Amino acid sequence: MFPYPHRHLLAIEGLEPPYIADLLDLAENYALLNRQGKTQRDLLKGRTLINLFFEDSTRTRTSFELAGKRLGADIVNMSVSTSSVNKGETLLDTASTLNAMKTDLLVIRHGQSGAPALLAQKLDAAVINAGDGTHEHPTQALLDALTIRRRKGTLEGLTVAICGDVLHSRVARSNIHLLLAMNCRVRIVGPPTLIPAEAAALGVEVHHSMKTGLADADVVMMLRLQKERMTNGLVPSAREFFRFYGLDAEKLAHAKPDSIVMHPGPMNRGVEIDSAIADDPVRSVIGEQVEMGVAVRMAVLDVLARGLRRNA
Amino acid sequence: MFPYPHRHLLAIEGLEPPYIADLLDLAENYALLNRQGKTQRDLLKGRTLINLFFEDSTRTRTSFELAGKRLGADIVNMSVSTSSVNKGETLLDTASTLNAMKTDLLVIRHGQSGAPALLAQKLDAAVINAGDGTHEHPTQALLDALTIRRRKGTLEGLTVAICGDVLHSRVARSNIHLLLAMNCRVRIVGPPTLIPAEAAALGVEVHHSMKTGLADADVVMMLRLQKERMTNGLVPSAREFFRFYGLDAEKLAHAKPDSIVMHPGPMNRGVEIDSAIADDPVRSVIGEQVEMGVAVRMAVLDVLARGLRRNA
Amino acid sequence: MFPYPHRHLLAIEGLEPPYIADLLDLAENYALLNRQGKTQRDLLKGRTLINLFFEDSTRTRTSFELAGKRLGADIVNMSVSTSSVNKGETLLDTASTLNAMKTDLLVIRHGQSGAPALLAQKLDAAVINAGDGTHEHPTQALLDALTIRRRKGTLEGLTVAICGDVLHSRVARSNIHLLLAMNCRVRIVGPPTLIPAEAAALGVEVHHSMKTGLADADVVMMLRLQKERMTNGLVPSAREFFRFYGLDAEKLAHAKPDSIVMHPGPMNRGVEIDSAIADDPVRSVIGEQVEMGVAVRMAVLDVLARGLRRNA
Repeated sequence: MFPYPHRHLLAIEGLEPPYIADLLDLAENYALLNRQGKTQRDLLKGRTLINLFFEDSTRTRTSFELAGKRLGADIVNMSVSTSSVNKGETLLDTASTLNAMKTDLLVIRHGQSGAPALLAQKLDAAVINAGDGTHEHPTQALLDALTIRRRKGTLEGLTVAICGDVLHSRVARSNIHLLLAMNCRVRIVGPPTLIPAEAAALGVEVHHSMKTGLADADVVMMLRLQKERMTNGLVPSAREFFRFYGLDAEKLAHAKPDSIVMHPGPMNRGVEIDSAIADDPVRSVIGEQVEMGVAVRMAVLDVLARGLRRNA
Repeated sequence: MFPYPHRHLLAIEGLEPPYIADLLDLAENYALLNRQGKTQRDLLKGRTLINLFFEDSTRTRTSFELAGKRLGADIVNMSVSTSSVNKGETLLDTASTLNAMKTDLLVIRHGQSGAPALLAQKLDAAVINAGDGTHEHPTQALLDALTIRRRKGTLEGLTVAICGDVLHSRVARSNIHLLLAMNCRVRIVGPPTLIPAEAAALGVEVHHSMKTGLADADVVMMLRLQKERMTNGLVPSAREFFRFYGLDAEKLAHAKPDSIVMHPGPMNRGVEIDSAIADDPVRSVIGEQVEMGVAVRMAVLDVLARGLRRNA
Repeated sequence: MFPYPHRHLLAIEGLEPPYIADLLDLAENYALLNRQGKTQRDLLKGRTLINLFFEDSTRTRTSFELAGKRLGADIVNMSVSTSSVNKGETLLDTASTLNAMKTDLLVIRHGQSGAPALLAQKLDAAVINAGDGTHEHPTQALLDALTIRRRKGTLEGLTVAICGDVLHSRVARSNIHLLLAMNCRVRIVGPPTLIPAEAAALGVEVHHSMKTGLADADVVMMLRLQKERMTNGLVPSAREFFRFYGLDAEKLAHAKPDSIVMHPGPMNRGVEIDSAIADDPVRSVIGEQVEMGVAVRMAVLDVLARGLRRNA
């Protein structure tokens, strides 16, 4: 799909299926190079990549940092506590600073939905959303899709059950958009308190029971349960949650015998997923998700860098 | 001015005007290379640059990190909370550690005035002061001077008004020394509580009104107002401060019609500067200051590295 | 000693003396290259080194980072507060993440004894223990041994007194194992509350007086006294501790006239060591220890990388 139609990667919603497929193909190629220990250091040579994290995330930051290093970029990590940046104007001042420093690629995680899009309007750099509020986390959805495609051969026609705290999950939101775009049948499964009101309008099936939600599913995607959900009354207790919505062998038996199990990490073992399932060498693809994470981020950096003018 | 007469950059006070001019010329050249997306990675190849920050400053640290990377240095960030380093001896032990690790270039920010000079006495490395207490912040003054020179063609004979909390500002102190050395007419403008007692002795004009202070100025340089100044009684309130000393269109009208507006960032919009002025595309050069920051730091690293023996 | 018999460096205990000697020889070579300002960037080119620190240690982390950079590795720092990782399972999930990211070399510091060994069982990467609980800190013992060997020509037959808080010191434990393996005579010196019960079983002499403990010693190795030891009653006060066990000229007079003084840093001057002794240019080798630290870590990274398959 040349030339690529997007300067930034802010959300999955609205991306063209052929563009998504191109990103996945390119990422698959990087996954192969990574396994062979090969790098492509000339691709981003002389490019400045800034990791701007307003929320802590060692895992995602590290994944982007490795992706950028393997492509030869100069990488600077900027960790900022949100407390010091609590005004909209200040975020725009940050944009102006990043422009003046000749940033080429900006990876941003921010607690407020829409912050990356706001920055993208003001920045010369290509902006990659690494998670914004409860909005989207597009590279997570891409790495999930790549992992599924490698295991199932295709995304087309698969039944995917996304389970747990869908309401607060940007991971779920990005996955729903991507999987629907690629013609999956998407179900969301969880207690009524954790299912967004607009769910049905998105074109997904809503289930409140793991039994019906997982029935004949090809993919079971568990979400992380934030601890604070238990203290604010949305979930009675970790034990109760596990009993009804935690993935164990009994519940997984409702899915297809060759179904795969996913989790974006970090896991709360014994809360949303049983350890035996998480560590199942055949069904669990959790490690492969992390591996594909680096590959997908390399593909995204590569594609967006092609859209940058060499000399601003 | 060869050979360069200084091993370190600890302060602007005492620097020879031709040395300052050389640094600005070199920085101007780096600014051009940066706009062209060109790097000079061989210049500091194999050199170890350590960013030692005892006070948080994402902006300044990032600027030095980018400058060092574009010249090919190996860069290690050491962030240290001052609490763990509260004795003079320990700072000297740090110096001894940095020597033993074969540090070539040390960038240091420290809450105590004089800490970089103390380290410089003990270190084999070239030391660059990135801000020490209320003493100096020399690279900030250099980047301000370069920004002015690019806009005005020269520094010679310009009238520069430095406004706000001059008393606590190392930025103001460095700028006063540099601008006087380069034959500017320097005014400081602020309430009596925020003007240092020794101001007149420095050779600057003191104004307590923006009207007289900005009259016919070529350059209006605003300073950041630290929040804590308001809680300790030096300033009645942000609103009162803005009314009398915040830069808005009405006050700026006293300066020359082609005057430029500067701020070292990060800004408190609505406290020391009005948003409309900060974002004025013609008068405000705040973005250019950040851009010149990287260029000036490249020039400083370059010049100081020339003074290092290749093999210690 | 080819091929090298160890995939990881988890502890000194159990290492073969010829392997230790090889590491020291290689490190000595790197020390020479470092003094000449030479690097060997091709050695770890394309290799990913992750610094995973669950406890803060700017000094050790920086030393490993410099070592890795001088050998050309891609380095990512992951600082994790132990609070977020308080379950055994989670450490294994971290292992799985690091595997999926194709980590080649993992440097880990952790508050729990045995954490690096646990990770090593699950990781494809070579694991280097950078300090675990009160267990071991093997690169510290190697750098201490290299420093001694350079000053004394050999380790064989030397009398080494390790003084202070031996009970809680992983540095002491690693040194005891290494020095005994290399045929030193090892004494530990400290108040009964700070000497481990199993000391005698290790094959060391136990002394409660600096006078007898230091008598005719070739090497006096001081340990850092953790501040919390004084608040929990193990030590009456810093002043009392210094009077009986702090190293000053009077106590050092019992050691051989050409004995050397060591400290792993950072020092509590006036608590475990007198400033005049710490700064003695002839007797104190504290700066050289830091220098050898970088060299030893280069040697360890080099040797362990040789054991990695190029393409996993």
